Amino acid sequence: MDAIMDKAEATKHVVSQRIRKKVTWREIAAEIGRPAAWTIAALHGQHPMPEPEARAVGALLDLDDAVVEALRTQPYRGTFDNPVPSDPTIYRFYEALNVYGPAIKELIHEEFGDGIMSAINFTLTVERRPDPDGDRVVVTLDGKFLDYKF
Amino acid sequence: MDAIMDKAEATKHVVSQRIRKKVTWREIAAEIGRPAAWTIAALHGQHPMPEPEARAVGALLDLDDAVVEALRTQPYRGTFDNPVPSDPTIYRFYEALNVYGPAIKELIHEEFGDGIMSAINFTLTVERRPDPDGDRVVVTLDGKFLDYKF
Amino acid sequence: MDAIMDKAEATKHVVSQRIRKKVTWREIAAEIGRPAAWTIAALHGQHPMPEPEARAVGALLDLDDAVVEALRTQPYRGTFDNPVPSDPTIYRFYEALNVYGPAIKELIHEEFGDGIMSAINFTLTVERRPDPDGDRVVVTLDGKFLDYKF
Amino acid sequence: MDAIMDKAEATKHVVSQRIRKKVTWREIAAEIGRPAAWTIAALHGQHPMPEPEARAVGALLDLDDAVVEALRTQPYRGTFDNPVPSDPTIYRFYEALNVYGPAIKELIHEEFGDGIMSAINFTLTVERRPDPDGDRVVVTLDGKFLDYKF
Amino acid sequence: MDAIMDKAEATKHVVSQRIRKKVTWREIAAEIGRPAAWTIAALHGQHPMPEPEARAVGALLDLDDAVVEALRTQPYRGTFDNPVPSDPTIYRFYEALNVYGPAIKELIHEEFGDGIMSAINFTLTVERRPDPDGDRVVVTLDGKFLDYKF
Amino acid sequence: MDAIMDKAEATKHVVSQRIRKKVTWREIAAEIGRPAAWTIAALHGQHPMPEPEARAVGALLDLDDAVVEALRTQPYRGTFDNPVPSDPTIYRFYEALNVYGPAIKELIHEEFGDGIMSAINFTLTVERRPDPDGDRVVVTLDGKFLDYKF
Amino acid sequence: MDAIMDKAEATKHVVSQRIRKKVTWREIAAEIGRPAAWTIAALHGQHPMPEPEARAVGALLDLDDAVVEALRTQPYRGTFDNPVPSDPTIYRFYEALNVYGPAIKELIHEEFGDGIMSAINFTLTVERRPDPDGDRVVVTLDGKFLDYKF
Amino acid sequence: MDAIMDKAEATKHVVSQRIRKKVTWREIAAEIGRPAAWTIAALHGQHPMPEPEARAVGALLDLDDAVVEALRTQPYRGTFDNPVPSDPTIYRFYEALNVYGPAIKELIHEEFGDGIMSAINFTLTVERRPDPDGDRVVVTLDGKFLDYKF
Amino acid sequence: MDAIMDKAEATKHVVSQRIRKKVTWREIAAEIGRPAAWTIAALHGQHPMPEPEARAVGALLDLDDAVVEALRTQPYRGTFDNPVPSDPTIYRFYEALNVYGPAIKELIHEEFGDGIMSAINFTLTVERRPDPDGDRVVVTLDGKFLDYKF
Amino acid sequence: MDAIMDKAEATKHVVSQRIRKKVTWREIAAEIGRPAAWTIAALHGQHPMPEPEARAVGALLDLDDAVVEALRTQPYRGTFDNPVPSDPTIYRFYEALNVYGPAIKELIHEEFGDGIMSAINFTLTVERRPDPDGDRVVVTLDGKFLDYKF
Repeated sequence: MDAIMDKAEATKHVVSQRIRKKVTWREIAAEIGRPAAWTIAALHGQHPMPEPEARAVGALLDLDDAVVEALRTQPYRGTFDNPVPSDPTIYRFYEALNVYGPAIKELIHEEFGDGIMSAINFTLTVERRPDPDGDRVVVTLDGKFLDYKF
Repeated sequence: MDAIMDKAEATKHVVSQRIRKKVTWREIAAEIGRPAAWTIAALHGQHPMPEPEARAVGALLDLDDAVVEALRTQPYRGTFDNPVPSDPTIYRFYEALNVYGPAIKELIHEEFGDGIMSAINFTLTVERRPDPDGDRVVVTLDGKFLDYKF
Repeated sequence: MDAIMDKAEATKHVVSQRIRKKVTWREIAAEIGRPAAWTIAALHGQHPMPEPEARAVGALLDLDDAVVEALRTQPYRGTFDNPVPSDPTIYRFYEALNVYGPAIKELIHEEFGDGIMSAINFTLTVERRPDPDGDRVVVTLDGKFLDYKF
Repeated sequence: MDAIMDKAEATKHVVSQRIRKKVTWREIAAEIGRPAAWTIAALHGQHPMPEPEARAVGALLDLDDAVVEALRTQPYRGTFDNPVPSDPTIYRFYEALNVYGPAIKELIHEEFGDGIMSAINFTLTVERRPDPDGDRVVVTLDGKFLDYKF
Repeated sequence: MDAIMDKAEATKHVVSQRIRKKVTWREIAAEIGRPAAWTIAALHGQHPMPEPEARAVGALLDLDDAVVEALRTQPYRGTFDNPVPSDPTIYRFYEALNVYGPAIKELIHEEFGDGIMSAINFTLTVERRPDPDGDRVVVTLDGKFLDYKF
Repeated sequence: MDAIMDKAEATKHVVSQRIRKKVTWREIAAEIGRPAAWTIAALHGQHPMPEPEARAVGALLDLDDAVVEALRTQPYRGTFDNPVPSDPTIYRFYEALNVYGPAIKELIHEEFGDGIMSAINFTLTVERRPDPDGDRVVVTLDGKFLDYKF
Repeated sequence: MDAIMDKAEATKHVVSQRIRKKVTWREIAAEIGRPAAWTIAALHGQHPMPEPEARAVGALLDLDDAVVEALRTQPYRGTFDNPVPSDPTIYRFYEALNVYGPAIKELIHEEFGDGIMSAINFTLTVERRPDPDGDRVVVTLDGKFLDYKF
Repeated sequence: MDAIMDKAEATKHVVSQRIRKKVTWREIAAEIGRPAAWTIAALHGQHPMPEPEARAVGALLDLDDAVVEALRTQPYRGTFDNPVPSDPTIYRFYEALNVYGPAIKELIHEEFGDGIMSAINFTLTVERRPDPDGDRVVVTLDGKFLDYKF
Repeated sequence: MDAIMDKAEATKHVVSQRIRKKVTWREIAAEIGRPAAWTIAALHGQHPMPEPEARAVGALLDLDDAVVEALRTQPYRGTFDNPVPSDPTIYRFYEALNVYGPAIKELIHEEFGDGIMSAINFTLTVERRPDPDGDRVVVTLDGKFLDYKF
Repeated sequence: MDAIMDKAEATKHVVSQRIRKKVTWREIAAEIGRPAAWTIAALHGQHPMPEPEARAVGALLDLDDAVVEALRTQPYRGTFDNPVPSDPTIYRFYEALNVYGPAIKELIHEEFGDGIMSAINFTLTVERRPDPDGDRVVVTLDGKFLDYKF
C-alpha cells in the first residue's frame, strides 16, 4: 500500500486546483468557516486539517482522496528553505524584524514584564487599509502574553 | 580628534541611563513626540535621529554630547547576530513568519496583486489587549503596498 | 535485486499505516514490550530494530516485508535538516538548551565532577502531569554519568 | 558616566568569586531561595535578577555594585556561539534532541494533541540517581502544554 | 489531475525551445511588447506572466499548454542556490556590490536623504557601449526612491 | 613604532570629520578630481588612495597624518559582514541581483557571447532622475566586456 | 546507453547484499586480501576498486555487473552531509579532534618539526582491546610524516 | 577584584613561557606525571588542571599566579573556530574522518554491536614510527565502547 | 517535446563512455584540437562546447544526440557543492590558496600594481615534472593582468 | 611577563615598516635568501621563520624584538575569514578552482593515478609574462605527487 502523500505534494495539488477553478483563498476559508490565514497555512502544510474541513476543501476543489488524506496529517512546521527567506514579499517582514526586533522586545517587556508573545496561542490577519497616498497592507499579529515562570 | 562614537556604544549609554533614571521608553517617546517603536529603534541605532530629538533625549537622560552626536548619524541597519535570532521574545516572530509566511504572501497577492508591503514606508505598534484568558500582545505592521512595476 | 529500502522511506510507510489503522504509538510500544520513546525513535530510523520487534510491528500495521527489512538495518542517526530545528514542538527544546545549557553543565559538574551525561546509555520519557493552571509536559532525560578519564 | 556592565562581563565576575570563595551554586540558590537551575541561568545572563536576589548574591560573593547592577538588567537570551554547541557536556543534549526529537514530538501530540511544551512557563532540574551500574544524571524538563489555537 | 508544472521545469522547456528554434530573448521580448530583462526574468520563473504574453510565448516557441499554464503562476522569487552566487557572470555584480555598497548607500543618502532604491518599482536594462579599448557592458538599475517614513 | 592604522579605523575618522565639517561626499570628490563613487569607496577602505589625493582629503577634513597614511595602503576588499547584507539600502541591490541575475546573464551572453562584465575595469554612478510619480535612483554599472579565452 | 551507476547507488546494493547474505565486512576484506578499513571505505565509494577485487566482491555478494562497474570508478571523496557529522558513532571522533587537535598538532611539531601526517599515504585500523572495566575501541591512524618544504 | 583570567589568555602565557624557557611539552608532562596529550590539552584550556599539577607547571614555566588560577577552572571545550578546521596539520584528521568515517562506524558495529567509542573515557597518544620510506606519525585513539542501552 | 538534458546528466554520459571506451582525456582533447583542461572543463559542464567539437566528441565516444545537444548549451558555472570542497585532490588547492593567498596578492600588486589576474582570459595546464625525490604535479595558471580602472 | 605577540599583530608591524621604508617583498626575500612567496607567507604568519631569517628581516625593517620573536613561532595556518574569500585578487583563484577543479583532478589522475598534489612539499611562484595583448600573471603551483597508499 502506498504511503500517505507528502504534505508538500498535497499543497501543489491544492494550489493547482485553486487556480484552475478560480477560487480565492478567502472563498475557501469561508467555505470551511475558518480564518483566512489559518486556512492558507493549513493548506500549505503548516497545520493538520480536521477531517470535515479537509473533506470540504476536497469537494470544493475536486481533490483526490489522497490529497485530502495528506491534509489531515500532523506536520513538521517551517517553510523557509534558507534561514534568510529570499522571496521579496516575505523578506520585508524578516527585514522589519531585523530592524525593529529590539523595539518590539522592549515594548513587550515594558508593558507586560519579562516574557514573550506566544506563536502558538496566536492569530494573524492581513487587511487592506485605503490610503490616499497608496493603500496599505496591515498585518496584525495577536498572541497571548506568556511571562517567564520558573 | 576622536572619531564619532559607534552607534552600538551609544545605545549602551542610552539603555543604561534609561534604567538608572527610571524613565520608560514611552516617556522618552512622548518627550520627543515620536511613536514608541520608532523611538526605541532609533535609540538602538536603527534610524538616524534628527538633532532636536537627539538633544531632547540627551537632556532627559543626561547623556554626554558624544552620545548625542552618535545618535544623529546614519546607520547600517540590522540587529541580528545570526540569521536565526536566539532571543525567545524575538524568535517567536521569526517562527510566526516561518509558519505563516506563505499565508501572508498569498493574502497580499489576493488582495492587492503581485507586490510587497513596504518595510520603509512602514509603521509598527505594540499594544496590550486585555483578555480574560490572559492578556494579549498585539503587534501591528502597517506598510504601503508596492506593486511590481517594471 | 533491489537494494534495501531507505529507512526514511520505511518511516513513511510506518507512519501512514499507523494513521490508517488508528493505532497509537503507545499501543505499538506495548505490543513489542519496549518503551514508547525508544519504539518511536526506532520506527523513525534512529535505532536498528531487532527481528522479532520488527516483525511484530509489521504484523500489527500490515507492512510489506521490504519495510520490515529496512527497520532492522543499522542507521546513520540524526533527524535535523538544519542545525537549528524549525518545527516549534522540537524548537522549544533547542531553545531550552540554549538558555539553560550552562546551568545544566554547572549542575552536572557540581554534583558529579567533570564529565557528561551519556546520550548512549540513556532513556527518555514524556509524561503528562495534571495541573490546575494547565497540564504540563514532563520530559525526563536519564543518562549514565561518565567522568573524564584519560 | 559609564554604561552598565555587559551581562557577560558580570558573569565572569560571579563565576570568579564563586570559585575563590568556594561557594557552590546550590548554596547560592539556597541563599536566595530560588531553584538551582534558575539561579545559575540568571547568573549566566539568561534571566534578569530581581534587586533583592541580586544584592544577596552580591553580598555572598563580595561583588562590586557594578556587577550587581548588571545582574538586574533584561537580557538578550541565548548562550550558543554556534548553532551546534561544541562543549561535550552540552552537546550530548543536542544529540539526544537530534535523535529523539520526533519521538518527543509524537508523544506530545499523542498525549495532548497538536501543540508544544512551553519553554517560558518552564522549569528544569538536574538530579543524581544512584545506580549500581554507575550513577545517573536525571534532567527533568517541565513545561506547560500549549495547544495551537488560532 | 496533475498539479501545475513547477516554474523551474517550465523554464527548462522555454530555454530548450528558444535554443532549438534559434529565437533570441530580444525577439521574444519584442513579440510580447515587454522589456527584455522583464521578459527573461518572467521566463525564468521570477514574475507571473499575464495570459496573453504567456500564450504568445507559447505560440512562438511551440510550448505545451502545461508550460504556458506554469508561466502564469505567482512565483516565490529568488534564483541563488547559495548566498554567494558561483557563476562568474553573476558573481561580478555581487563583488561590485560588496566593494561599492557603502558608496552607493552614501550617494543615495546624500542625494535623497535616508531611504532606499525600490527593487519593486524598478527596471533594469543591459546595453552594449562600443569602446575602442573594448566594448562595455552597461547595466542600468532604475528604481523609485522610497524614504523612511514611520 | 606603531603599526599603520587599520583602514577601517581610518574610515571612521574620515566619516566623522566629514560630518563635523559638513562637507558632502561630492565636494570631497570634486576637491580631488575623482568620481564620487570611487572617492567614497576609497575612503571606505576599498581602494588605495594615491598620495596627492590622500593629502588633499586630509587637508580638507583636517585628518591626522596617521589617517592619511592608512588611506594610501593596499586594501583587502569586501565590505559585507555576512554573505547576505542586512542594511536595507544595500540589500535591495542584492535582491535585484537575486531576481534578475539570470536575465542579466542571458542578455550579456546574447549581446556579447560567453563572458563577463569586468568588475575591475569598471565604473559606477548614482544619479537622481526626476519623475512626477516620485524621483528615481539610477545606478549605472559600466564594465568592460571580457570574453572567455582559454 | 545508460550512464555508469552512481557510487552512492552501488554502495546501497553492496550494503544490502552483505546483510542479506550474512557476510561480514572482515570476510569481504579477507576474500580480496585487503585491509578491512580500506575495503569498507572503497565499498562506500571512497576509493576506486581495482577490477579483480571488484569482481571478487561481486561474486561473493552476487552483485549486478552495473554495481561492479561502479565500484571501479574514481570517486569524489567525502562522506559528510554537513560539516559537523550528526551520527554519534562518527561524531565522537569529530569531538575528540575538536578537543585534542592542538595537542596532536603540538606533539607532531615537537617530534617531527613543522609538517603534517599524510592522509594519503595512510592506513587505519579499528581493534577491540579487552578491558575488565569494559572493552575498548582502539583506532590507530598511521600516516607518513610530511615536512613543509618550499 | 579582577575576574579570573580567560583560559585562552592563560594558554598564551603557557605557550610563550614554554618557548622562552626551551621546555618541551613532554618535559612538562613528565614533570607532572601525566600523559603528554592530556597535559597539552589541559594547557590549551581543554581540561581543568588539578591544583598540584597547575602549581608545578607554574613553577616550571615561571607563570604568574593568575595564570595558574586560570588553568584550574572548568572549561567550555572545543578549539575549532570554524566547523571545518583550516590548519593543515589538524585538517588531515578531519579529512581522514570524512573519508573513513563509515569504515570506522561499520567496524565498530561489526565488532561490538550498536554503540560508540567514548570520547570521555578516552586516551590518545602520538608516536613516531621509523620507516625507511619516511617515518610515520601514529596516532592512537583508545576509548571505552559504550553500547546503546535504553 | 523533452527539455534539453541537464549538463550534469550529460557529464555522466561523457564520463561513462570515456571509461568504457578506454579513451583518455588527452586523446579527446587531441581529437578536437583543444587544450586538455579546457576540454575536460567543457565536458564537465563548465564551458559551452561549439557544435563541431561537440559532434566530434559525440562521434568518438558514441554519445546520444541528446548528450551532444546538452554539451553545446551555455552553463551556470561552478562545481563546488559546499564552499569548502571535500575531495582531497581538489582541497589541496583550496588549502594552498588559504595559506598563500596573501603572498600571491602581494606579488601581483608589487609586480603589476593594484589589480587582479583574470579568471576569464585565462588558461591552465597540469604537467608532470620528473624528480628523483618523487615526481611533481605542476599546475600553471596563466591569466591576463587587469588593473583597477574606474 | 607579557605573552608573545600574536602573529597577526606581528604581520601588521612588518607590513607597516615595509611600506615606510619603501622595501619590496622581493628585496626582503633576497636579503634572507628565500623564495618570495615563502617569505611573504611567513611574514603573514603562515610559516614559522627560523631565527637567522627573522633577525635579518628585523634588522632590515627596524622591527622591535617582540615582532621578531613572534615571527619565529609555529602558526595555526589559514588566512580566510570566510570560506569564500571576498578580496577580488584572491577570489579569482577560488573561482578558477571552482570552474577547473574537476579538470585538474582528472588530469592528475590520468597522469599519475589516484592521488593528490602535496600542499606541503610544495612551492609557488608568481611571474609576469609580457604579452602584446596585455601582460599576464603566471602562477605556478609545484607540489610532489602523493599516491593513495593504504
